Amino acid sequence: MRHIRFATPQDTPQILAFIKALAEYEHLSHEVEVSEARLHQALFGTPPAAEVLLAYEGDTAVGFALFFHNYSTFLGKRGIYLEDLFVKPEYRGRGHGKALLARLAALALERECGRLEWAVLDWNTPSIEFYKKLGAVPMSEWTIFRMTGKALADLANSSA
Amino acid sequence: MRHIRFATPQDTPQILAFIKALAEYEHLSHEVEVSEARLHQALFGTPPAAEVLLAYEGDTAVGFALFFHNYSTFLGKRGIYLEDLFVKPEYRGRGHGKALLARLAALALERECGRLEWAVLDWNTPSIEFYKKLGAVPMSEWTIFRMTGKALADLANSSA
Repeated sequence: MRHIRFATPQDTPQILAFIKALAEYEHLSHEVEVSEARLHQALFGTPPAAEVLLAYEGDTAVGFALFFHNYSTFLGKRGIYLEDLFVKPEYRGRGHGKALLARLAALALERECGRLEWAVLDWNTPSIEFYKKLGAVPMSEWTIFRMTGKALADLANSSA
Repeated sequence: MRHIRFATPQDTPQILAFIKALAEYEHLSHEVEVSEARLHQALFGTPPAAEVLLAYEGDTAVGFALFFHNYSTFLGKRGIYLEDLFVKPEYRGRGHGKALLARLAALALERECGRLEWAVLDWNTPSIEFYKKLGAVPMSEWTIFRMTGKALADLANSSA
């Protein structure tokens, strides 16, 4: 039997394993710096920085969705931003990814959110086709800009 | 004299005016549904959905930055996501935009965030050049997908 539930603190090692597996799939393992202690603090601290849903097949955790709220000034409403969605390769094609997204969509309506959003790597064609079939729209006219490390520190120092 | 401060509840009408002016600049006025009451609740409710910095020249509010926290599973850290940045056209070119970004960068370091991120419309060349000069990196290999309205409701219903 398939089911989905919210993660509890004891699930932290499992969630960390999923995050590392997702990074490997995205060819981004070199970017992973998270520790179990930091993840635990983020998910179960006050207030939590993010929330996690776990997908199960029987007693086996087969995938996860990690998300938090963003905010649209134009709508004047919160949204749900899906940071990570992952299903173990050997459990793909059985509806777990769609079930996780459907639960997030239901949660978005419950919490009066106007949008469900997430980012996809351009080479990830199978995922892109899947998302389009569900009615998701690519916001192709927008580009995310990111500041980190020295650029961020230099800009911060210029504010003094 | 120029200064930046956090917004208070009395600033809500001013922030709403800035949001509408930004939407007009982005040719997105048709997307604006926010009301003063909803904005007030979002910014000053418990917990707030977003925070606002206001830029002043003397006694005149000349621009704003509206932001919230996101979370990177790879870093295991929160980030700052800048939803809106706007300076009144007649006050541009005087360093207000950079001062707002610098304050956000300082805030990111204070709060132990790993990143400062925001989205830019592809046709907005002056802003893109400005951001690149500051050391921001375009995450061009990622595309945001968005679900709203009927597609979101249909997906939510499929979870029952």
